[in-house]
Amino acid sequence: MSYLDQITSPTLLLDERICRINLQKMAEKAKRHGLNLVPHFKTAQSHIVGEWAKEYGIKEITVSSIKMAEYFCGQGWENIHIAFPFNPLETKKLNDLAKNQSISVQLINEEVTKKLAAELEFPVGFFIEIDAGYGRTGVEVSDFGMIESIMRAAKVSGKLKFKGFYLHAGHTYYEPDKNAVYEQTRAALSMLKNKYITEYPQLITRTGDTPGCSVMEDFGDIDEIGPGNFVFFDMMQVNLGSCKMDDIAVALAVPVVDIKKDKKEILVHGGGVHLSKDVLTELDGSKNFGEVVYLKENGWEIPLQRSYLKSISQEHGIIKASDDLLSKVKIGDILGILPIHSCMTADCMGSYLGINGQQIDHAEGD
Amino acid sequence: MSYLDQITSPTLLLDERICRINLQKMAEKAKRHGLNLVPHFKTAQSHIVGEWAKEYGIKEITVSSIKMAEYFCGQGWENIHIAFPFNPLETKKLNDLAKNQSISVQLINEEVTKKLAAELEFPVGFFIEIDAGYGRTGVEVSDFGMIESIMRAAKVSGKLKFKGFYLHAGHTYYEPDKNAVYEQTRAALSMLKNKYITEYPQLITRTGDTPGCSVMEDFGDIDEIGPGNFVFFDMMQVNLGSCKMDDIAVALAVPVVDIKKDKKEILVHGGGVHLSKDVLTELDGSKNFGEVVYLKENGWEIPLQRSYLKSISQEHGIIKASDDLLSKVKIGDILGILPIHSCMTADCMGSYLGINGQQIDHAEGD
Repeated sequence: MSYLDQITSPTLLLDERICRINLQKMAEKAKRHGLNLVPHFKTAQSHIVGEWAKEYGIKEITVSSIKMAEYFCGQGWENIHIAFPFNPLETKKLNDLAKNQSISVQLINEEVTKKLAAELEFPVGFFIEIDAGYGRTGVEVSDFGMIESIMRAAKVSGKLKFKGFYLHAGHTYYEPDKNAVYEQTRAALSMLKNKYITEYPQLITRTGDTPGCSVMEDFGDIDEIGPGNFVFFDMMQVNLGSCKMDDIAVALAVPVVDIKKDKKEILVHGGGVHLSKDVLTELDGSKNFGEVVYLKENGWEIPLQRSYLKSISQEHGIIKASDDLLSKVKIGDILGILPIHSCMTADCMGSYLGINGQQIDHAEGD
Repeated sequence: MSYLDQITSPTLLLDERICRINLQKMAEKAKRHGLNLVPHFKTAQSHIVGEWAKEYGIKEITVSSIKMAEYFCGQGWENIHIAFPFNPLETKKLNDLAKNQSISVQLINEEVTKKLAAELEFPVGFFIEIDAGYGRTGVEVSDFGMIESIMRAAKVSGKLKFKGFYLHAGHTYYEPDKNAVYEQTRAALSMLKNKYITEYPQLITRTGDTPGCSVMEDFGDIDEIGPGNFVFFDMMQVNLGSCKMDDIAVALAVPVVDIKKDKKEILVHGGGVHLSKDVLTELDGSKNFGEVVYLKENGWEIPLQRSYLKSISQEHGIIKASDDLLSKVKIGDILGILPIHSCMTADCMGSYLGINGQQIDHAEGD
């Protein structure tokens, strides 16, 4: 039975073949540059995708919350890194986790470091998150006072082990001069490594964004990369030049419920609760909530004439349809939508259907 | 134990008192205007909120998918209306549902009507959805050919019973001249009622948007209203003038993980996977992803000096903080965020915590 026969409502499809190519390419790139690849599993949030990743030599993963770390605990990962400034209200949960699983956390201030130093019951590693220009989170790269106060506060405890510096250069998503961002990342991490390596000879540096890791060819003396989105990619990454549309490994299958030929519009069941509301703005100012692909027995095909979701509400999606699509489509058909932001779409949907008909797990939300 | 002691991670709070006031006010308004209130439960998606609604005389509800109808089936509702153009791939599911629960659906084309007429095993009501200017979905108000072809196709079956016309005037959300939209809604439904009432003496008309139902005082000869968002309201509705901030019944509780006093910014665990990415653009062009409230033992307080989420990513939220908030806040505190779009936030979160500490159910997503 084709996977298509299983679909009656919005369903997130995952093409294992494409996902494995993405994992393999990034693993090979990491190897070529002497980097340890520690992918961020906030994107896939899946044990099955985790098993695929292990086949490409991946031994450690990154997640973005304690809850997600709990999901991946006990699956044989050598370490799970929680790449979010540690939330001190979750200290008990961290102790419960760290009893049976090697965990590292991210620290950006003295208060939380002191609390962990006082209350940890099992060894936990930590990275200091560095902000070298993104401005979202982290210790400013030149704030050595803060960096050293965190290091000192941690030293009080035998349980809290400094691993190194973590830098998520999220501004690769909007900064036009991406090379400047890469240079900033390399320089920041290199400077910090040189400054503290004598005191911490095991110190490692890690950087994490998919646009950077996909395109950068000079990683300087960076030790590890932790991109997430690359396992699936999405239209935002196509737009950024990180990948091609062929590299996108997930598509939302949506049932066609109405067709307005005169307006060249197709109404589908598929909206914000399925895709999330991430959007690309086209050059002409129009909005794009996802790109239409044609579903086939063995996956999907990117049409020559493009069609796309021009608007969505909670459950509704309206496709601006090409003549080619209009000439073929019928009510009751199922179309595919390549998402704008696959991490959010996967989180909204909460599970995947493989194009071989296999159910693929995704962690529960929040 | 306070509800606050239960929170260690992002948690959606629901204030039963405010929610009941919203239900009561809308029920009283419906009564005053001789309207039947059939609220849209895509917002709350909750049996417990359903029980509250029953106390204000509500006997029927609206939902937006078969899956949501399944959730509410068997809870004593006199009818559940699925206010989404019927997806013909779900005909079997509809038959399963309609065996034990009075159901109505929405039809907008002849193809799906014919399919249902041929395949229904149990009686199901239907509304014809009308588009009087919103442009998202429905038969154009003047397309009598289509309206009558749907009526004719339905008549072939003894199972498919025409109930009337449904009109969701979603353009009240962005149209500056809201009175013109209300007039358009009243006129469209009145014209259709007059045209078809002789043939269908039981015919009813229903309209559904929260901005309209909150503000309109002249409903003409409309029979039923089906607003959804009003049970919780949100910042978008405040912005539209449908309610005041005091009327918002849900707030996302978010842990404070870092404070940058110099930048007047507070980093919280609370992002797009919790709130959704709906956003308001302020007059000065800045973005608002949610409004900060102070959590108290018995609910929340709207501060005199406003603070708001200026940016969010998947898990991170950055608050632009007032001096008042900065003077009080500590890492490890919990703040409240009034969402921009409560339907989406509730769908992202998947459950509620009452401020009396009660766990409140929400249907599973998608």
